[in-house]
Amino acid sequence: MTWDILNIIGTIAFALSGVIVAMEEDYDLIGVYILGLVTAFGGGAIRNLLIGVPVSALWDQGTLFTIAIIVMTIAFLFPSLWVNRWMRFGLLFDAMGLAAFAIQGALYATEMGHPLSAVIVAAALTGTGGGMVRDVLAGRKPLFLRKEIYIGWTMIAGLVIGLNLVSGVIGLGILFVAVVVLRMLSVYYQWQLPHRKLEQFQSP
Amino acid sequence: MTWDILNIIGTIAFALSGVIVAMEEDYDLIGVYILGLVTAFGGGAIRNLLIGVPVSALWDQGTLFTIAIIVMTIAFLFPSLWVNRWMRFGLLFDAMGLAAFAIQGALYATEMGHPLSAVIVAAALTGTGGGMVRDVLAGRKPLFLRKEIYIGWTMIAGLVIGLNLVSGVIGLGILFVAVVVLRMLSVYYQWQLPHRKLEQFQSP
Amino acid sequence: MTWDILNIIGTIAFALSGVIVAMEEDYDLIGVYILGLVTAFGGGAIRNLLIGVPVSALWDQGTLFTIAIIVMTIAFLFPSLWVNRWMRFGLLFDAMGLAAFAIQGALYATEMGHPLSAVIVAAALTGTGGGMVRDVLAGRKPLFLRKEIYIGWTMIAGLVIGLNLVSGVIGLGILFVAVVVLRMLSVYYQWQLPHRKLEQFQSP
Repeated sequence: MTWDILNIIGTIAFALSGVIVAMEEDYDLIGVYILGLVTAFGGGAIRNLLIGVPVSALWDQGTLFTIAIIVMTIAFLFPSLWVNRWMRFGLLFDAMGLAAFAIQGALYATEMGHPLSAVIVAAALTGTGGGMVRDVLAGRKPLFLRKEIYIGWTMIAGLVIGLNLVSGVIGLGILFVAVVVLRMLSVYYQWQLPHRKLEQFQSP
Repeated sequence: MTWDILNIIGTIAFALSGVIVAMEEDYDLIGVYILGLVTAFGGGAIRNLLIGVPVSALWDQGTLFTIAIIVMTIAFLFPSLWVNRWMRFGLLFDAMGLAAFAIQGALYATEMGHPLSAVIVAAALTGTGGGMVRDVLAGRKPLFLRKEIYIGWTMIAGLVIGLNLVSGVIGLGILFVAVVVLRMLSVYYQWQLPHRKLEQFQSP
Repeated sequence: MTWDILNIIGTIAFALSGVIVAMEEDYDLIGVYILGLVTAFGGGAIRNLLIGVPVSALWDQGTLFTIAIIVMTIAFLFPSLWVNRWMRFGLLFDAMGLAAFAIQGALYATEMGHPLSAVIVAAALTGTGGGMVRDVLAGRKPLFLRKEIYIGWTMIAGLVIGLNLVSGVIGLGILFVAVVVLRMLSVYYQWQLPHRKLEQFQSP
């Protein structure tokens, strides 16, 4: 039950982020729906592909699909209701989606008996894959590889689950809250992983 | 038989559209072949992936593959024969390819017992997926999400077939003609679905 | 044994090329790892998808994965060690990776009993797919379709193996050397396949 709620929050948050990008690119109504659905379900699809679940398992998510369609329809019809609030609450929603999907992806891969590396990748892909496909389809440079430790938190969630450090509703709930809080903190304090620009090491 | 002809028309139309983009991007001979093949067969490959058919079913389409190679070779060797005519007849060919592939994709998904939503998505992906991959590979912003109801017509074809409103050669033939005509009309009269630019709803 | 060495060289060369692009794009540490892994393993993943091997077979390559991680860590920590040398030896490494992966992809497809066209495509995808995904993820225009016969040499390797013209360690070794040499020669002498710019055939 807790789990379903998290999944719903993730789906809504990612569908809305797809709607925003589609509106920024001046897509029409169908383009808005498609980009929203791709963002909400694309991460799970790529994860399924790489860990050996049939991608067509997507079609069993009928309820989430319906919720996403309803949310996107409301968002498209009444943008004034939420666009301004998005800047304030969007980050929180996105962090919750990131955490929920990363944890779900890691559990999925664990249940299939994959090794730790695959569990971490599954967490990362489920959490960030939808946004990646959204950016590629919208002709944008995917930012998830240089944003403030965005993908890093999903990998930590994957590591924790892959090492079996938490379990049960309470353990997963704590992990969920931890990922959300860490993601929020990394944005507010602009935490950065080490970068290296190439030029400085090249001879002139 | 009718069906094979439609499939051949779709393959040729999409292969040629890939050849045009490859020439615009100054690709070499192999680049031309690859972009043509990707455009002609990419939609079916993505559709197969998402509805649970092995993507390797691609390799059973030997005849279509051969036809596409021959057409692309002629197109590359004698561009003056067709490039100018393309602007006039290319739209019709593209509409026929769109309709044929959308109908084929929807039938495919229906036969596999997928729900209506999957049938619509299969129609949309088969009809438009090849052009999408072509644009991503050529480093272009995919336009199918904002062109004149491009993807919308494929979804209507999927809806009609998913609801079992038509069947048989005659029913499918009528649907095919309807999609082609609607697509042509939407270009000539510049029909547009509702758009929303984001800025107007943001506070300054 | 010889084979494993080739595979290791290919993986290292492609992982380093991903690291270079990630540094040029100012990605952070995790972005560097991800782009390196995608470049090294993406071609095999796409090949598996298209010839009907489960993509999850990726996870059996644990040793290569570990090698890639170690190499990328060293490369990130000590860029001054190799970035300047890369321009001199990078081309050779890349050619060896291209040849090793193309041959491996073609053998894979042959063993599965696919027709000649699939063997050629498997060779091309395994050799060049990783670089393609790398460029798309980094928001760059994929260059492999117009670089000096880059993909062409992989297809020749596929053709030779698909027609069963070579076999055994010695035969494959000769093919490997031939592909590397041809690739190097095509860069040094700037061999080009025929190009056609579209504009010259369009009426004004």
